[in-house]
Amino acid sequence: MNISKLGEFGLIQRIRQSMRTDPSVRQGIGDDCAVLEFDRTRYLLATCDMLIEDVDFTRRDKPLLVGRKSLAVSLSDIAACGGVPKWALVSIGLPRRTDLATAGRIFSGIRRLAQEYKVNIVGGDMSASEKIVIDVCCLGTVEKNNLVLRGKARPGDVIFVSGAFGGSLKGRHLSFVPRVREARYLVTHHKLHAMIDVSDGLVQDLKHILDASGTGAVLFEGAIPLAKEAEGLKDALYSGEDFELIFTAAARDAQAILSRRKDFVPIGAVLERGEGLKLLTRQGRSVALPVRGFSHF
Amino acid sequence: MNISKLGEFGLIQRIRQSMRTDPSVRQGIGDDCAVLEFDRTRYLLATCDMLIEDVDFTRRDKPLLVGRKSLAVSLSDIAACGGVPKWALVSIGLPRRTDLATAGRIFSGIRRLAQEYKVNIVGGDMSASEKIVIDVCCLGTVEKNNLVLRGKARPGDVIFVSGAFGGSLKGRHLSFVPRVREARYLVTHHKLHAMIDVSDGLVQDLKHILDASGTGAVLFEGAIPLAKEAEGLKDALYSGEDFELIFTAAARDAQAILSRRKDFVPIGAVLERGEGLKLLTRQGRSVALPVRGFSHF
Repeated sequence: MNISKLGEFGLIQRIRQSMRTDPSVRQGIGDDCAVLEFDRTRYLLATCDMLIEDVDFTRRDKPLLVGRKSLAVSLSDIAACGGVPKWALVSIGLPRRTDLATAGRIFSGIRRLAQEYKVNIVGGDMSASEKIVIDVCCLGTVEKNNLVLRGKARPGDVIFVSGAFGGSLKGRHLSFVPRVREARYLVTHHKLHAMIDVSDGLVQDLKHILDASGTGAVLFEGAIPLAKEAEGLKDALYSGEDFELIFTAAARDAQAILSRRKDFVPIGAVLERGEGLKLLTRQGRSVALPVRGFSHF
Repeated sequence: MNISKLGEFGLIQRIRQSMRTDPSVRQGIGDDCAVLEFDRTRYLLATCDMLIEDVDFTRRDKPLLVGRKSLAVSLSDIAACGGVPKWALVSIGLPRRTDLATAGRIFSGIRRLAQEYKVNIVGGDMSASEKIVIDVCCLGTVEKNNLVLRGKARPGDVIFVSGAFGGSLKGRHLSFVPRVREARYLVTHHKLHAMIDVSDGLVQDLKHILDASGTGAVLFEGAIPLAKEAEGLKDALYSGEDFELIFTAAARDAQAILSRRKDFVPIGAVLERGEGLKLLTRQGRSVALPVRGFSHF
């Protein structure tokens, strides 16, 4: 039996069950970031993301954008927990024939985004490799009472997104804005129950919230914002790498968010687990939403 | 111009110069770990190491040992700064055809070593890849007054090593003991000036201490402990991946170390920078030691 049969999430689930942690770990494998004891008022957040040539980008993509993306995906994970990114380490594998200008542009892409978000690049590793591989580990902090994870969505919550979905493969997956500022606004002004960033697809990542919370949900077809590059609803629901936030808040908090900001869009509601995951169509029909999305294996 | 012309260390030097850091960073790129502000009495240490199939290991190596090595090299970096490893994140790229038993053994190798050193595996990433790639990011802490870096060796210091050198490619590079306990003994009982772990070769890694400290050094040929697998002095000086510690201490502290422990071997002395790096042969001749060792590019 090979790993593609078990699938990426099956494999992660197995690893997760085998790893024990001590009380310094508030949250281990299974959320956007690891949440670790730091000081009296804050947690340390840690996340790693690996990009591989011909899987996550190609040689035809601009090296500056490839470097940018390698950090941006990790910033997006810190954002999804409500945190402030502070430090990053960059491990990179490069073919020996790589020209210096290409290597320089990859690092410039990382450096520019790091400066924009006041993130310190503090270390890493370098290796020869047949294909370009970049693994960025990002560390941040979050005030204990501002931490948001996946597991506390409740029936009755409003489900919001921070932007539009679909068509990311036409280029947005390389140039998206990691929603650090938006997440910080949310956690410092409002009470959220659950949050995640969309890397594997709107439905699949929403499902991660529902599974962790033990709930179901309904999405309103007409409410889902489509990116102008999107090919349609299916693309928006399943294609992945949008790197927008999905979050849930109780109805009263949802009202407060809506009254103050126009950039967070309500797209559905959290239901009891038995309701499953449904789509309410424009015609008013309720249909089950199949769960699928990107999986590496 | 491609990167192999500039070389690994030339490229790191360029990146290092281009990255600015804020006061939360006590030490950024250029030592075994990044050293970050954590709490009043301790620093946070962070280090990443990337292993790539056919560069750092092959398919013929046991997956259990490959997994073990991927964490062990990062534990060795934490040790080289005098710290205690606490948390690790594992990013892994696996070919889709990888059988589940192989993937399981890689993770078992990581898990067993993590348990032995009380390290929590708290997160990571997983991706499809043509070759196996494992990047481990390890976090630890060190009391501020126990931190040891590369840059404070002083003329007159005794140079010690924690074990034997050479022949690592015959298997020890997969099964070495990361010197966490030894380093903790040293920093909690003695005053060290500089420390590094040997990944690129005894001479090359000693040179990193000398460059950072602005000093020279002499090694005594007859004092350098050869591993039983070593093919001779050259192998011991240059082959790399021994993962023993090199450290320096003032003469009085060196006496204290020698009087209490037999496992740390004095192999030379720190000199003024102008003396360069020399070897005192068994015949009593002083010869310049050329600096070379492993470089990825």
